[in-house]
Amino acid sequence: MTVEENLASHNIQLPEVSAPAAAYVPYQISGKQLVISGQLPFANGALSHTGQLGKDQALEAGQACARICALNVLAHAKNACGGDLNRISKTIKLEILVSATADFDQPHIVANGASQLILDALGADKGKHARVAYGVSVLPMNAAVEVAATFELA
Amino acid sequence: MTVEENLASHNIQLPEVSAPAAAYVPYQISGKQLVISGQLPFANGALSHTGQLGKDQALEAGQACARICALNVLAHAKNACGGDLNRISKTIKLEILVSATADFDQPHIVANGASQLILDALGADKGKHARVAYGVSVLPMNAAVEVAATFELA
Amino acid sequence: MTVEENLASHNIQLPEVSAPAAAYVPYQISGKQLVISGQLPFANGALSHTGQLGKDQALEAGQACARICALNVLAHAKNACGGDLNRISKTIKLEILVSATADFDQPHIVANGASQLILDALGADKGKHARVAYGVSVLPMNAAVEVAATFELA
Repeated sequence: MTVEENLASHNIQLPEVSAPAAAYVPYQISGKQLVISGQLPFANGALSHTGQLGKDQALEAGQACARICALNVLAHAKNACGGDLNRISKTIKLEILVSATADFDQPHIVANGASQLILDALGADKGKHARVAYGVSVLPMNAAVEVAATFELA
Repeated sequence: MTVEENLASHNIQLPEVSAPAAAYVPYQISGKQLVISGQLPFANGALSHTGQLGKDQALEAGQACARICALNVLAHAKNACGGDLNRISKTIKLEILVSATADFDQPHIVANGASQLILDALGADKGKHARVAYGVSVLPMNAAVEVAATFELA
Repeated sequence: MTVEENLASHNIQLPEVSAPAAAYVPYQISGKQLVISGQLPFANGALSHTGQLGKDQALEAGQACARICALNVLAHAKNACGGDLNRISKTIKLEILVSATADFDQPHIVANGASQLILDALGADKGKHARVAYGVSVLPMNAAVEVAATFELA
């Protein structure tokens, strides 16, 4: 299946994204590696979930938040690929940062919300990936989750 | 020396590892880079050390924990190399995450437990590496340390 | 402009750096990628800023701290390049870790201190970069900021 078919079959719609109004760029390409900057859970111009897991957000909300971060990752990847996500040959790694209190021991379960979206969108072969997932004390703009990624281009 | 000789001379035994029962894989290969997912301190099927440095675990216990995480990194690397760790030509980078309270200022000393294991196992030439080490608010399953790595394959 | 001209025009002076007295190295090269270990805000042999953003350090101090970390990144990069920073063809990614309390929601603004220094030093074309920036519970030696980087070599 093409990525477009995967997206349609899972009813996944990628958001519109714009370059960060800051001192960095949303992605960089080096050789065959496409490196996507850390993405916050922006949806329709605002953060979908803020605060900490273990205090302000429940597990399921955290997973939904991680999924939205991953949607933004894919939207930037699509731009980097000139609009054609089929140019991605492999997902190398996801970095999934969860704003969490010290007693929230499920950042990996939150992270599955991002991992599953990438698998659904790119398919099991191109979507499987290595990852790191952990709890951090705070994220930019008090976002609940941030996701960065590295892909391989064909 | 071969890696097997290094392991024997330092009395290092690699654990049995299995793929994570989750939405990701333990490693990914892109070109000559082998990327290992973040590893928790599993030993005989359970976490060896949980909780935070600065509260629940002493410095030496943290170092032992970091070493066990690194053993799991190497065990997955061995699987990725078809059983032959001599295929590793270089250790590019370790990421060492230490669950720590705000007043524990020695995450880098904890991290040395992982760095030393990699040096012992792979030898000074192939084992030397760049790294990042820092304290995080919480890790999956309340683990005390998590270690991820990137190697270069010959 | 050469990097030397950029440094002069922005009045940027790189510090003297030495290899970490620990179980790792300040940089590693794999193929065309130059990977710099996490750098603390060392200036004249001591940390310029310690403690947490949101408690011990103000926003502007955090930005100044991030800039100093980035100076150390560049100093090691220069050593890796045999003294010639013009060998850097691209800045792939910065990792910017900010020691921060849970209510400090501006780690990305702190991070701009590092991003801007890299842009000033290498120029807009070679200095632009992907990045991740987030708050962590504690850094080695209680540093306020840590910056790691990956560059592409020509």
